[in-house]
Amino acid sequence: MNGSDEKKIKLIVAYDGGAYHGWQRQLNAVTIQQILEERLEKMLGQSTRVFASGRTDAGVHALGQVVHFSTCSRLDPGTLERGLNSLLPSDIFVREATYVPEAFHARYSARRKRYAYRILNTEDPDIFQRSYAWHIRRKLNNEAMRGCLTRILGEHDFSAFRSSGSGNRNPVRTLYQAELLVQQGGTIQILMEANGFLRHMVRNLVGTVVEVGLGKMSSEEFEAALDSGERRLAGPRAPAHGLFLVEVTY
Amino acid sequence: MNGSDEKKIKLIVAYDGGAYHGWQRQLNAVTIQQILEERLEKMLGQSTRVFASGRTDAGVHALGQVVHFSTCSRLDPGTLERGLNSLLPSDIFVREATYVPEAFHARYSARRKRYAYRILNTEDPDIFQRSYAWHIRRKLNNEAMRGCLTRILGEHDFSAFRSSGSGNRNPVRTLYQAELLVQQGGTIQILMEANGFLRHMVRNLVGTVVEVGLGKMSSEEFEAALDSGERRLAGPRAPAHGLFLVEVTY
Repeated sequence: MNGSDEKKIKLIVAYDGGAYHGWQRQLNAVTIQQILEERLEKMLGQSTRVFASGRTDAGVHALGQVVHFSTCSRLDPGTLERGLNSLLPSDIFVREATYVPEAFHARYSARRKRYAYRILNTEDPDIFQRSYAWHIRRKLNNEAMRGCLTRILGEHDFSAFRSSGSGNRNPVRTLYQAELLVQQGGTIQILMEANGFLRHMVRNLVGTVVEVGLGKMSSEEFEAALDSGERRLAGPRAPAHGLFLVEVTY
Repeated sequence: MNGSDEKKIKLIVAYDGGAYHGWQRQLNAVTIQQILEERLEKMLGQSTRVFASGRTDAGVHALGQVVHFSTCSRLDPGTLERGLNSLLPSDIFVREATYVPEAFHARYSARRKRYAYRILNTEDPDIFQRSYAWHIRRKLNNEAMRGCLTRILGEHDFSAFRSSGSGNRNPVRTLYQAELLVQQGGTIQILMEANGFLRHMVRNLVGTVVEVGLGKMSSEEFEAALDSGERRLAGPRAPAHGLFLVEVTY
């Protein structure tokens, strides 16, 4: 490989996480990174490492995961996009491929990320939503949940909503958006945008906010958990299959 | 089994057909009938045969398939519904269980059936709809398609839209509804209600109407195919995964 001839390409990728053990390559488990790298190698004729804006866990979906890689190939991004899509399985789709400057890095250049968490709050489950929304039978108190979401806007230490194993990185993040939308058919969507998220932060937040929505935890207890920074005071983690990485902003 | 103690129960069942080889029991292939009968046997402690309003083909979905069976069990329908749902896999759901009179038959008592066929008419596929809509990239002429649908309303000999192997039953059916709805995000829904459907009739009709929508067949050719009763003059069959059995009326 000759660095001077390399070009950097950015992909926006959608995937259904249901069949995968998350983004990151693993031994003995199929991941999205692995599938993408294999198909790229097939197209470009050389082993190619891809870098994502961040990992997504097993079962988590993406509408707009961002990925970059470097290649000496002379294929233009449009051709690459069509070629990749013809090789990829039907649950992974490249929405866009573009050249980016050498300095671009899918992870380190990201300024904001937006996630959506889908809840189906109906008596009966919807079998067609079973892999794309968390089904909660008991009626949630949306207003109480909105109160919690307003409370977490802005800059906070989110240690209480970080899963262990996330290293010793700075636990302070800034939330720009934390909103609950009620949609038709009993679907609730919780949107969160921040300058970054700690490990399992969205799912831990949603799981705790749902505790408040169910009346199992008070708004005061929610606040106390946030302020304490103690994971044990917050609620359980919401399941993976309701979570979508919507957009990464650079 | 003692006939005099038997009660007849009607179920309204939703299922995602993606993982099944259709409704009807088969050797060496998993079907919805088989799963339902196995779970019923587990609950009732006796082998139970279920009868549906009609077969659905491999890959076809149902929002409201209707099924009946007879049982000596004293479990009331509500208990039965909850029990069955706790035993069924997540892609089959019993929406309702009720007692029906002895004379009721899911197939022979049916007066009308309604189907919906979903098409995603967008440039890019939507991976989350890949099992629930036929993706057609080229822009369809919805008005031309609506013309065809209007033409098939009422009583007709639908031989041109019947697949072979459907026996020698009367090919005349009455269509009460044949409508095209444009929904958000490029989804098109074609609704058809009739007093009955021939084998593959909805999919053959949709496939032919789409030929007109793509400009590959004229409205006159569509009419000629209908009038001729000849299968070879009509278009190809639309794929199974866009089709939903919505409702059966008694």
